[in-house]
Amino acid sequence: MNHEQCIKACLECMEACNVCFDACLKENHMMADCIRMDRLCADMCEFAAKAMQTNSPFIQQICQLCADICEACGNECKKHNHDHCQKCAEVCFRCADECRRMAS
Amino acid sequence: MNHEQCIKACLECMEACNVCFDACLKENHMMADCIRMDRLCADMCEFAAKAMQTNSPFIQQICQLCADICEACGNECKKHNHDHCQKCAEVCFRCADECRRMAS
Amino acid sequence: MNHEQCIKACLECMEACNVCFDACLKENHMMADCIRMDRLCADMCEFAAKAMQTNSPFIQQICQLCADICEACGNECKKHNHDHCQKCAEVCFRCADECRRMAS
Amino acid sequence: MNHEQCIKACLECMEACNVCFDACLKENHMMADCIRMDRLCADMCEFAAKAMQTNSPFIQQICQLCADICEACGNECKKHNHDHCQKCAEVCFRCADECRRMAS
Repeated sequence: MNHEQCIKACLECMEACNVCFDACLKENHMMADCIRMDRLCADMCEFAAKAMQTNSPFIQQICQLCADICEACGNECKKHNHDHCQKCAEVCFRCADECRRMAS
Repeated sequence: MNHEQCIKACLECMEACNVCFDACLKENHMMADCIRMDRLCADMCEFAAKAMQTNSPFIQQICQLCADICEACGNECKKHNHDHCQKCAEVCFRCADECRRMAS
Repeated sequence: MNHEQCIKACLECMEACNVCFDACLKENHMMADCIRMDRLCADMCEFAAKAMQTNSPFIQQICQLCADICEACGNECKKHNHDHCQKCAEVCFRCADECRRMAS
Repeated sequence: MNHEQCIKACLECMEACNVCFDACLKENHMMADCIRMDRLCADMCEFAAKAMQTNSPFIQQICQLCADICEACGNECKKHNHDHCQKCAEVCFRCADECRRMAS
């Protein structure tokens, strides 16, 4: 490993940014839960798609977790009247169904 | 490819969540630029660390882009008085320096 | 959404590359399972670290899955005599322990 | 930050797995460059799609880098007669075009 110092800097920066992201959301209540769930759910779906595309082991467990997170994100989005939230809820519930089917 | 339908659902859900994330931030001005830069910068640093850890091709170009994004994130964070923002700015500038060194 | 065409191209390319990655590994048996588990486990750990760094909901379930994947990756790596595999197995088992503790 | 120990374990595990991934590919020459480029390109495309979906700053620079990496991945895939490699090359070149258009 010969990039050690730069990797360390990157990982520290990743951490600082993720911590600051979380803290900023706390300063700023309106929509914070929705923003947080949107990010988690987008990243989870990315991870699940990649797992399926590479015929990864653990697809069932990954899809089960993805279903649970999609469901929770849909429930959060459904609470808000904005069109983008309502649309996102719908897509999340559909994905939760597909993932549950894959997991079973 | 035999997981087609579920992959499609995951990718649609990833998109809906990312779009909703963006739209929620627009509803909610205070700290929105900082939250947005934090996410971008954390994800960029993750990508750069992975590239270096795997001796990926394109390390120089990836680290150059990472340096530019860290610099921009540091500049955004520096504007806000919260401790977590000031600390994040510092870590970002340090990472920008390391990445610039790696890129050169 | 005004980047539609390029996003579509990116997602199709992500899929093609992940499918080709999987197929290449199948052409090429030696170490293929280890390469596959290494990637899955690295990506899972990245995801878990990000979840914890952002105080994400679902940390317990994410860490539980991360523990299972780390354990499986460690078991695969342990089979190979290369130093990097033995070292990786050790780190995986340690991470599995930490994640199990976080999940409980 | 109260998940410190587990985050540290995850990041160490991510690193060990990425290093082992790289080292395994070196043990195993046939198709190694293709496997390596496939992973880099899939991850780059994921990152670019996410950047566009969230209206992230730096979209032009990110798409420029994505175009360069797609082009290189296409060139590598094109060398191999397997159907999945030829198909992947085609998708990569198409994505490189789209990304170049977005970057300009």
